[in-house]
Amino acid sequence: MSFIKTPAVPVESINPKVKDCEYAVRGEIFNHAQRLQEELEKNPGSRPFDEIIYCNLGNPQALGQKPITFFRQVLALCEYPDLLDSDETHKLFRLSSDAISRAKKILSTLTGKSTGAYSHSKGVKGLREMIADGIALRDGYPANPEDIFLTDGASAAVHMILKLLIRSENDGILCPIPQYPLYSAAITLHGGTLVPYYLSEANNWGLEVFELKGRLDWARENGISVKAMVVINPGNPTGQVLSESNQQEIVELCRKEGLVLLADEVYQDNVYVKDKKFISFKRIIKSVYREDEISLVSFQSISKGYYGECGKRGGYMELCGFREDVKDQIYKVASVNLCSNTSGQILASLIMNPPKALEDAFNSMEGVSCQKAEGAMYLFPRIKLPNKAIEAAKKASMVPDAFYALRLLDATGLVLVPGSGFGQVPGTWHVRTTILPDESKIPAIVSRLKAFHESFMREFQD
Amino acid sequence: MSFIKTPAVPVESINPKVKDCEYAVRGEIFNHAQRLQEELEKNPGSRPFDEIIYCNLGNPQALGQKPITFFRQVLALCEYPDLLDSDETHKLFRLSSDAISRAKKILSTLTGKSTGAYSHSKGVKGLREMIADGIALRDGYPANPEDIFLTDGASAAVHMILKLLIRSENDGILCPIPQYPLYSAAITLHGGTLVPYYLSEANNWGLEVFELKGRLDWARENGISVKAMVVINPGNPTGQVLSESNQQEIVELCRKEGLVLLADEVYQDNVYVKDKKFISFKRIIKSVYREDEISLVSFQSISKGYYGECGKRGGYMELCGFREDVKDQIYKVASVNLCSNTSGQILASLIMNPPKALEDAFNSMEGVSCQKAEGAMYLFPRIKLPNKAIEAAKKASMVPDAFYALRLLDATGLVLVPGSGFGQVPGTWHVRTTILPDESKIPAIVSRLKAFHESFMREFQD
Repeated sequence: MSFIKTPAVPVESINPKVKDCEYAVRGEIFNHAQRLQEELEKNPGSRPFDEIIYCNLGNPQALGQKPITFFRQVLALCEYPDLLDSDETHKLFRLSSDAISRAKKILSTLTGKSTGAYSHSKGVKGLREMIADGIALRDGYPANPEDIFLTDGASAAVHMILKLLIRSENDGILCPIPQYPLYSAAITLHGGTLVPYYLSEANNWGLEVFELKGRLDWARENGISVKAMVVINPGNPTGQVLSESNQQEIVELCRKEGLVLLADEVYQDNVYVKDKKFISFKRIIKSVYREDEISLVSFQSISKGYYGECGKRGGYMELCGFREDVKDQIYKVASVNLCSNTSGQILASLIMNPPKALEDAFNSMEGVSCQKAEGAMYLFPRIKLPNKAIEAAKKASMVPDAFYALRLLDATGLVLVPGSGFGQVPGTWHVRTTILPDESKIPAIVSRLKAFHESFMREFQD
Repeated sequence: MSFIKTPAVPVESINPKVKDCEYAVRGEIFNHAQRLQEELEKNPGSRPFDEIIYCNLGNPQALGQKPITFFRQVLALCEYPDLLDSDETHKLFRLSSDAISRAKKILSTLTGKSTGAYSHSKGVKGLREMIADGIALRDGYPANPEDIFLTDGASAAVHMILKLLIRSENDGILCPIPQYPLYSAAITLHGGTLVPYYLSEANNWGLEVFELKGRLDWARENGISVKAMVVINPGNPTGQVLSESNQQEIVELCRKEGLVLLADEVYQDNVYVKDKKFISFKRIIKSVYREDEISLVSFQSISKGYYGECGKRGGYMELCGFREDVKDQIYKVASVNLCSNTSGQILASLIMNPPKALEDAFNSMEGVSCQKAEGAMYLFPRIKLPNKAIEAAKKASMVPDAFYALRLLDATGLVLVPGSGFGQVPGTWHVRTTILPDESKIPAIVSRLKAFHESFMREFQD
């Protein structure tokens, strides 16, 4: 018989794993900042600064970045599909009938055609299929929708996998130092051991195999069974983009040592330098190994990239090289929480399938190169105009790209804006087009564009 | 040096807590149903039934229930606030300018005025304040927004609390049998021990203190420290609504035995019988005990009630009688996952604050009684018309409620629909009104309604 005198839970009685867990991004400094903000609101001028600027978190929409219009139009239409039947809506969305057709397509895949129904515990199957298509396009290797688990942000996926892998403090997870503190916090919460490896600052924060091997041996000598290795690429907080050869070394190490590779690839759309590009670990693996040689989990999030939809809590993990019985266990854990939120699921399908048919079309044309649309709703392809076309434009007293746009309009009915209206490096020529026409009209637009461009280039061949 | 021959994670190597966890709602039967559904799609007629009907899950929108229009209008406007500035939108939403004003109010509380920003880890403060107001109205006792944690569905909140309370298999949680299998699954995942107590079927699935006490003693004799007790009210899967006296017994037991009361109150808006009503455990506690005598966690969800917004994954827990240092620990765990999804947060604020000013007004009038609007967007108040008014209507060759509605229109400009247009028990009279006028106009509408009703009742006094 026990009588407890203090019925309110004393902090000494709680799970020590919870007590031990630390999370720097929203830790003491953040709490103090919130107190300072309240103080400044009550007593302006009480501090030597007027406002608190939160640089602790990648939270672009908190700092005024606008969400991508196309994404939000699709979301609004999915939340309130009555809008789809209204004349006013078609007027409102007149510049973006693509959003309307995409929303219809997405709604048709949802359970009960509603965002308000629990979905499959991995996420809506149709949305996983769209994501699989996006992954296949990115990597050049197919993706299986059944291996994709949609989650409330990538953090939830990381928790699921760590929960699966960690049995006790004798199970270790190799983590980069510096790391994103989700990993240290989650490993502590799930009762495992973080086995640190240091990123090489001298080597542009790359991974060094001898360092990894040394840490691994040390851990094993100390009775720790190392189950997995976390690699964050592009890096957080270090910002590096790993080289392909470094990625290959990492993959080979994981294969040899039987480590699950946990690839945090949530910054895949945040590569800012021209000479670096993101290559997924899946692509590295698929180009060299058999399916069952390495177990990989790739994490992606809607909170990063040009989209920055942090508050919507969407993300996914793709599993490669996992056995069916283990995938069944992950599915079971996912099913305990029923499903992730449908807005986040929809956004995950959108970030992996942004409207892009026009971009491909431009890049397939002779003398035209077009950057990927990473934000807003426009493409600004560069057109290498032949000298004869430039001379013809001069004769007509027109800027060359305006001359091109006018000929295009006359020949096809397509309205584009000459790049000269926006400013461009002298001697380069562009046109600007919205990416928002109705998806069903894109093929016709593309074929007209191509036919015109070919005949234009023939006409003015140097 | 170890060489692992099977790099793919063998199921034998995973966390046994994951393996041991079971979840019946989406277990074997559900998986088989999905296979049967695929089979039927490929080979119609291959089974003695045409379709699979999913009654395993309370998922109303999967079965064709429409979401509440007001809620979805607010969501759509918050997702794509450009709609707020457009004339077309005002035409589209002309019947529900209330949704526009509510969306503006909600947007003004969001971090960065956007649903796309990470919020405070407990949830947007302004939304927690709205929820606290709703709780205070429900219980008659104030609620503190700082004690409310918004989560991706109530399940996530249950996980957070169990993670906090359970240290090892020596920590027990008292759970009803039958129970909702989230509890057994989560206790297994978090490594604790489920201490079962049986609901008394003979006693309308009520809780019997001698049974609880016996189970508690048994657990303690077996070295289990019982930390908390789960009570599901209204019951799932048993459907009972506990009596106030039974709730009082439960609370007193928790106080005496130092148990945290985990009150699963997600069905608080699903009470179907006239003689029962939902009373929150918080109200029971507040009416008898001091703040620090009992620790209570109350769980609420947007997936249940008349709203049934399962796919949006919203919910909250309200903590009462917890110490600050323990609340800090819960906040820290919440912060590791940054925040719950903002659509779910917004819906949680809406279900705790549905539009209701008109309902109150009707109920305050002589001879008028009005049921709570639990769905759709209408009220159907019953009006006890005086005999003299019924005679006057007959003289005018009108149905009495149409006579009332016509007089109302003439006197005030307010357009209501006579109940006779919908059918009603003979001898009863109703009018139907939408609940959607602009919130700012409600006070004027209410005063006109009241003034007209008083003068009408005076004119035809029996």
